[in-house]
Amino acid sequence: MKSELERPLILITNDDGADAKGIAVLTELMTQIGDVVVVAPDGPRSAQSNALTVTHPIRFKLLEEKEGLVRYSCTGTPTDCVKLALNEIFDTQPDIIVSGINHGSNSAINVIYSGTMGAVLEGCENGILSIGFSLCDYSLNADFSSFEPFILQITREALKNGLPHATCLNVNAPMGEIMGVRVVRQCDGRWTKEFEKRTDPHGRAYYWLTGSFENHEPISEDTDEWALEHGFVSVVPTKIDLTAHQAISTIQKWKL
Amino acid sequence: MKSELERPLILITNDDGADAKGIAVLTELMTQIGDVVVVAPDGPRSAQSNALTVTHPIRFKLLEEKEGLVRYSCTGTPTDCVKLALNEIFDTQPDIIVSGINHGSNSAINVIYSGTMGAVLEGCENGILSIGFSLCDYSLNADFSSFEPFILQITREALKNGLPHATCLNVNAPMGEIMGVRVVRQCDGRWTKEFEKRTDPHGRAYYWLTGSFENHEPISEDTDEWALEHGFVSVVPTKIDLTAHQAISTIQKWKL
Repeated sequence: MKSELERPLILITNDDGADAKGIAVLTELMTQIGDVVVVAPDGPRSAQSNALTVTHPIRFKLLEEKEGLVRYSCTGTPTDCVKLALNEIFDTQPDIIVSGINHGSNSAINVIYSGTMGAVLEGCENGILSIGFSLCDYSLNADFSSFEPFILQITREALKNGLPHATCLNVNAPMGEIMGVRVVRQCDGRWTKEFEKRTDPHGRAYYWLTGSFENHEPISEDTDEWALEHGFVSVVPTKIDLTAHQAISTIQKWKL
Repeated sequence: MKSELERPLILITNDDGADAKGIAVLTELMTQIGDVVVVAPDGPRSAQSNALTVTHPIRFKLLEEKEGLVRYSCTGTPTDCVKLALNEIFDTQPDIIVSGINHGSNSAINVIYSGTMGAVLEGCENGILSIGFSLCDYSLNADFSSFEPFILQITREALKNGLPHATCLNVNAPMGEIMGVRVVRQCDGRWTKEFEKRTDPHGRAYYWLTGSFENHEPISEDTDEWALEHGFVSVVPTKIDLTAHQAISTIQKWKL
């Protein structure tokens, strides 16, 4: 057990909102490791990606304050929460940012839509060790218990070893029993059949987002989708440099 | 000049909304190249990243239909616009998606916040040639004229050469005279001093997002920021695989 002075300062956020079960579980786990500040959206902000609130101002509100734990809610997106925490709430930078536990998968291409991972990318941009945790179960009352020891171990290893520059972690867990951990890459794939068309009482069409994920490499064992389908926690090192470096020399040959 | 049958089908969207000057300019340019369908947000959606509308349904509305040009507005985000266009509006996939012209820079880390680039990443996920165009001028009445010949040339070269799998382009232009084009990488940096705190008439604090960009590698000539500061159009090949591939073997050594 570390002494009081050695306890890391941990920022927690999510995209399911401050009252979600997933963030309550993550908060309980993190208080075993360090001093915790929660700054989470005041309601659901799923699929908010790295969206920022620019057309109106945001606020935050103290929810709870006790030894080793302070909790705030914020009217903005998950990325806003991290920005507001780092700029206005913290006097010193946190040692680590953890986001989640998300109710639902953020594997494969979902990483670009995820509010959970938006917050993680934001932490990463600011040079802070950042990890997103997600469970492949969308239900409000999801059972996170199998995932819990893995969350503790991954967080402790991250604090001990650090991460390369501009790199964060996208951690997903399958439902039910967990076979172990695989450090893998983002699986290639896309969403299809994405809308359910309905007609309102006035005869006008409206569209609900839905859809199914089409895995483009189902037998590749080094992907997050494969790991999850086979009962493993997937850990994908994720970066904020979106440059396709290998394409630069090709495009430099264009007539521009 | 290509024959009528050979004209490519072009989808245009943006994040400044269907009535922005930038999309009007881009639409006029693209009608010189092919048949155009515009599906753009019905109002400003800046900094919406890859956000999706999941808590309520969305709609679209026909604005204009004439030879070679159909325009719709949509109640969703830029990414929603692309999804809705591909799933519900187009019978066949477009040959190319162009997004913008954004009023403001989407260089460096801005790519992760940008609604303009959110739409481009969405097109890329769907295997469609996709390009985002942005001008480093936030004003509503920005002058896009110097940028226009470069937009035409880049689009024509992209249609001719294609792009590698899961790769799209993030194209930014400086204000004023343009010296040429540089194919470069995303510059490393972050936003700082991000909020302006104000007090409402009831004595409560609220926060406006603002801030300034801190360039972490100002003398690196192979970055988008360097190109833009020196009067060049920056072309960054951009990918939707966020995996930090080089970090996988390092993290596989952790005790997990």
